[in-house]
Formats: sequence, structure tokens, C-alpha cells
Amino acid sequence: MNNPDKPARAYEAVLDAVEVDLRAGRLKLGDQLPGERALAERHGISRASVRDAIRILDVMGVVRTSTGSGPSSGAVLISRPAAGISTALRMHVASAQLTVREIVETRVLLETWAAGAVSLHDDEARAEGLLDEARDLLEQMERPETGRQEFHDLDARFHVVLASLSGNAVITAMMESLRLAIRDYVSEAITSEAAWGDVVATLKAQHRRIFDAVAGGRGGEAAGLLREHIEWFHREVG
Amino acid sequence: MNNPDKPARAYEAVLDAVEVDLRAGRLKLGDQLPGERALAERHGISRASVRDAIRILDVMGVVRTSTGSGPSSGAVLISRPAAGISTALRMHVASAQLTVREIVETRVLLETWAAGAVSLHDDEARAEGLLDEARDLLEQMERPETGRQEFHDLDARFHVVLASLSGNAVITAMMESLRLAIRDYVSEAITSEAAWGDVVATLKAQHRRIFDAVAGGRGGEAAGLLREHIEWFHREVG
Repeated sequence: MNNPDKPARAYEAVLDAVEVDLRAGRLKLGDQLPGERALAERHGISRASVRDAIRILDVMGVVRTSTGSGPSSGAVLISRPAAGISTALRMHVASAQLTVREIVETRVLLETWAAGAVSLHDDEARAEGLLDEARDLLEQMERPETGRQEFHDLDARFHVVLASLSGNAVITAMMESLRLAIRDYVSEAITSEAAWGDVVATLKAQHRRIFDAVAGGRGGEAAGLLREHIEWFHREVG
Repeated sequence: MNNPDKPARAYEAVLDAVEVDLRAGRLKLGDQLPGERALAERHGISRASVRDAIRILDVMGVVRTSTGSGPSSGAVLISRPAAGISTALRMHVASAQLTVREIVETRVLLETWAAGAVSLHDDEARAEGLLDEARDLLEQMERPETGRQEFHDLDARFHVVLASLSGNAVITAMMESLRLAIRDYVSEAITSEAAWGDVVATLKAQHRRIFDAVAGGRGGEAAGLLREHIEWFHREVG
């Protein structure tokens, strides 16, 4: 992938070609990749190297593979950035070369920018759909029967939906790529149910204020509340 | 990896175990993973599945593999988060139907934040190495014999190196994931050699001022110059 940090591997020819074809629009989501033999011939590599490439694309959430050999088998292009990127992110967080602070800094940057960029009027139907989704996540978090792990999952989704209101697909993809890492650092910061009981009431109140500011079109206020919410948790709990 | 979005695969047992061992401190950077046969036995999977897992860890920048069968062969734990994450993110940026405006907004956000976060003193050897790399890219861009396509490639690399001076590996990975998209929209905005001749002198002067501000530790000034540089091009040329 033209990456000066890594030596060339046979399978990289396939990754490069898929990236170039996606960028040029010759490949689209839902399309099927050519078969193993065709790819091996096109790139002058072994079928084993083609299989390596497909497996890597699968882990990255770029293709979905099915087994079998009929016409419906093979690798279909999908796009699940969160799955692929968070796998890599998690490994690096685990080896402690990537700190929670870096994730916190990045989400504060992306989320406050997105809140400031929200326009509820450019595409009202889209904005209303996303606000409904955010409100629904908020209500699920507020239900007394919602368990802690479910809360963390809803919480991370709530933040991604708010960021998507900015209408910027790059920022949204980046937030989605951080979703599982966010869910996990929040979940792991709290080690006892007693501590969680103290924290969750504050989180619910902060979420409600953030949502009201966004839904009321007060982007600057929402940005400030988001920063306060994320940094408070990292400082007091994380 | 406890990921509800993906079906279980045989190789995931190895990825999970490496993550758990890293978190627990049983595996550290520089350690060698157990051999193929040992891993296959431990997880009750085939050696082919173990090889899949190693290859995926290699792409993620979590291990470095060497060929051969001596005692020094095998997979050694390293950590190159930027390389690993950006490989996945790039594929998703490539498949999204992104507008130039979204890319411009995102790079202004990431690059101005990074310029403001640069610390030349936290790790002086690292900062000096990156400044040398940026200076070298600058000098290559300034050579009269550098062709236009080469200039665009150097230009995009220059911006990624500057962002990496922030020391935040998540932001660096996000910038690296945008690198080819940046190179291409800049290249495609200019349709004639005559127009390019007018633009390139301005770009060179802007790059030199940005570099001087960063190298001089004037992060706020560098952030302002970067915003001006990126938005000027998008407004006047793009």
C-alpha cells in the first residue's frame, strides 16, 4: 500500500488494487471481487497469497466472505469500518502503545467539531431521523432495567449518531472506527458496581443536556457540554 | 475479539489470546510469539489458521515476521499503531463516496489540532527525526527537476509527517488514511501545466513558512498558516 514502513508482501498487490479500484469507482459496495484464480493471474501471485489478501480484507471489514463454490460464493465488498479498525486499535491499546489519552483527545476533537458543524436545516428529513435515533438511544440508557454493558454500548452509539449529524462522512467514519475502543475504555475504567452507581446518574444528566442543545440547534453549547462530559469522565473516573 | 458484528473464525482464537496476554502483561513488546505448532495445539486449530492469525497481526503492525526456520525466525511483537490502523481506515475512506469538501474540512481539523499539539521537547530524538524527514520532503519539492505528480506525492507525505509530530498515533493514523485522497484531489484540481506553474510557487512558499513555524516551536502560528494554505488552495484552485 505504498507504505514505506513495511516490506512488500505478495498479498499487498491485491490490497493496493482494491483500494485503487474503490477510489476510481470501478468497484462499489455490494460488488463481488473477481475469483481467486483471476486475481492470482492479474497480479502474478500465488492463489495462497490471494487468499491471504481476502482474509485481511475480511478482518478489516472491507469484504464479507462466504464459503462454498457456487456463483454466490466469493468476497463481496461491504464497509464496516468499526469492525476492522477497532480490531487493530484494540490490539495497540492492549500493548499500551496507544493510550486512552490519545483516544480521548481524538474524540474531543472530532465530537466538538461535529457539534459545531451540525445543521438541522440542510436536509431536515435526515437530521430528524438521526435525532430520533439519538433520542431512542438516550431513552434506552435511561431505563432502569438497562444493564451496565448495554449502557456502555448505547452510550458509544449515541456519540457516533450525534457526530453523524455534522453531515461529514469522513468524520463520521472516523468516529465509528473509534466506537468499540470508546465503549471499552469507558467500561474498563469502572471496576465496581458501587462506583458505577455514582457515575451513571451524572452521565445520564450530561447526555440529556447535550441532546437538548443539539436538538435545539445550539451547536456551540453542545460542543462545550461534550468536551466537559468526555474530559470529566477521563479525569474523575478514567 | 468479542465483536458481535462478525462471525467467529478459527484464527480469532489467536488474536483474542494475544490481546488478553498483552493486557495481562504476559506478552510484552519485543517478545516472540510461540511457534506455529504450539499455537495450533493450544487453541485446537490448524496450523493454516495460526498462519492466518500471524499474517493479520503483521498487517495490523502488531508483529514483525521474518522468514526462515532458525531460532531467530518467527513473529516478534512490535507496535506500529499508525501503520496498522491506517491500512484499514484507508480502505474505508476509498470506498466511501466522499466529497473534496469533507476531506478538506477533516484535514483542516486534524492538521491544525496537530500543529497546536506539537511538542518538540517531550521526545527530542523523535521530534528531530521527524523534522529532518519533513525538511527532506520540502527540499525535494523545491528541486526544479521534481515533476508534478512527484510533487503531489511529496506534498501529501509532508502534511502527514507534520501531523505525526503531535505524538498522537490515532490522529497520525487518520491523516495517513487520508494521504492518497489528499494527493489525488490536489492533483485533479489542476488541469493544465500553465495553471500549475502559477500555483506551485505559492505552495512552496506556504510550505516553507509552515515548516519554519513548526520547527521554531510556534504551534499556533503553524496552525493558522496550515488552515490558510489548505483553504486557499480549495477556494482558489480546487
